[in-house]
Amino acid sequence: MAKKSLGAKVWLIADSYLPDQSTGGMPSHESVCVLNLNRRPAKVKITVYFEDREPMTGLEAECPGQRTVHVRMEKIKNHSGKLIPVAKPMALMVESNREVIVQHTRLDTTQPALALMTTMAFPLK
Amino acid sequence: MAKKSLGAKVWLIADSYLPDQSTGGMPSHESVCVLNLNRRPAKVKITVYFEDREPMTGLEAECPGQRTVHVRMEKIKNHSGKLIPVAKPMALMVESNREVIVQHTRLDTTQPALALMTTMAFPLK
Amino acid sequence: MAKKSLGAKVWLIADSYLPDQSTGGMPSHESVCVLNLNRRPAKVKITVYFEDREPMTGLEAECPGQRTVHVRMEKIKNHSGKLIPVAKPMALMVESNREVIVQHTRLDTTQPALALMTTMAFPLK
Amino acid sequence: MAKKSLGAKVWLIADSYLPDQSTGGMPSHESVCVLNLNRRPAKVKITVYFEDREPMTGLEAECPGQRTVHVRMEKIKNHSGKLIPVAKPMALMVESNREVIVQHTRLDTTQPALALMTTMAFPLK
Repeated sequence: MAKKSLGAKVWLIADSYLPDQSTGGMPSHESVCVLNLNRRPAKVKITVYFEDREPMTGLEAECPGQRTVHVRMEKIKNHSGKLIPVAKPMALMVESNREVIVQHTRLDTTQPALALMTTMAFPLK
Repeated sequence: MAKKSLGAKVWLIADSYLPDQSTGGMPSHESVCVLNLNRRPAKVKITVYFEDREPMTGLEAECPGQRTVHVRMEKIKNHSGKLIPVAKPMALMVESNREVIVQHTRLDTTQPALALMTTMAFPLK
Repeated sequence: MAKKSLGAKVWLIADSYLPDQSTGGMPSHESVCVLNLNRRPAKVKITVYFEDREPMTGLEAECPGQRTVHVRMEKIKNHSGKLIPVAKPMALMVESNREVIVQHTRLDTTQPALALMTTMAFPLK
Repeated sequence: MAKKSLGAKVWLIADSYLPDQSTGGMPSHESVCVLNLNRRPAKVKITVYFEDREPMTGLEAECPGQRTVHVRMEKIKNHSGKLIPVAKPMALMVESNREVIVQHTRLDTTQPALALMTTMAFPLK
């Protein structure tokens, strides 16, 4: 009996970028939004890919069962306490030990007013 | 004979958020847009997932056959008459008794001018 | 020998809406963007679904082989010369006699400055 | 033993457009964002489709293994040193000799403030 799918364990985002400027009350930021439909918590690892250097690892989050976590990419630190660099073209891999759903959103207030973009991440099969 | 698919019965949105501020004439809002290509009406149930509390259930809508319904998330009430809370990171599950297509859109006027984001929801198979 | 896919013949967009206001030099509009990778032209039919009335049919476009067509939804007329109504929640079905790729974009200048949203349409299999 | 997929080799974007105006400090632009999870570099070819002329070829980029490349479409030149024309409705095909992930983003500052849109490209199977 095939168990019903609750998403995928690996998700990719090819366009990630943390703006280094903000205007107005809303800081520019990105969110990796995870939805865990399982009963048990999901351990999530994020790898950041760059144009000009080795990938950054050691970024982790946990999403309890039947919960969502919106990971703020400008705040999360890796095992060495390092933040993700700003103003760098990046891509992201999100790996979970359980099937989850992943969506990625950027809010950019570099120029006055607010710009938003979002996309479902791409699930690897 | 395999019947032609008219979408899926379960759709997920990992990034949902109701802004608590608006500027100008357009209120900030989110829409869950359902397209029902069937002849008969589809009953739609929406579950809201949070970071810090139990999921909210009891949000229902109906989409007649050959029609669309754009459910305004800041207006819909559950069985107890409760609105979805604002300014909370959320995720959504949309379940339908018939196959439908689901797309999710946020309009954010927190800062002057208008920001839009949209994505097809993720269909569970 | 399986022929290589060049997309799909039926695509759905659950969130369509033609804003009835514009500011600045850019009119608010939506585009249904078709890419035809075939050698031969594709005939495209668009059906518009509403919340409160029968679907609107008779909207047609042609996309030559190895070309794209960005159909401007506020300009296209059906067989009776009728435009698509503005300020109505809508959904779209795009049907083609050959496999194509379909993406849908809204540009909204209801409030000062420009807002954009886009998504790949959902391919029916 | 089926090798694990690392994306797809052909990706399509039906809505491409290079705005010919910018305001503020951010130039309007589009990016084709490639993520290469392979160990070895990926050679990427981009074909631009138009409404009224033959496709433009000869646009190439390389994405090293375990890296991302965000190709700026207003800067890339083909073999003859030609730029992609501005203010033309276009579509894109991205072909890679290895499996990659492709996402497409437009930043539009035609009117004051910033507008963003993004979508995963559509993978051909």
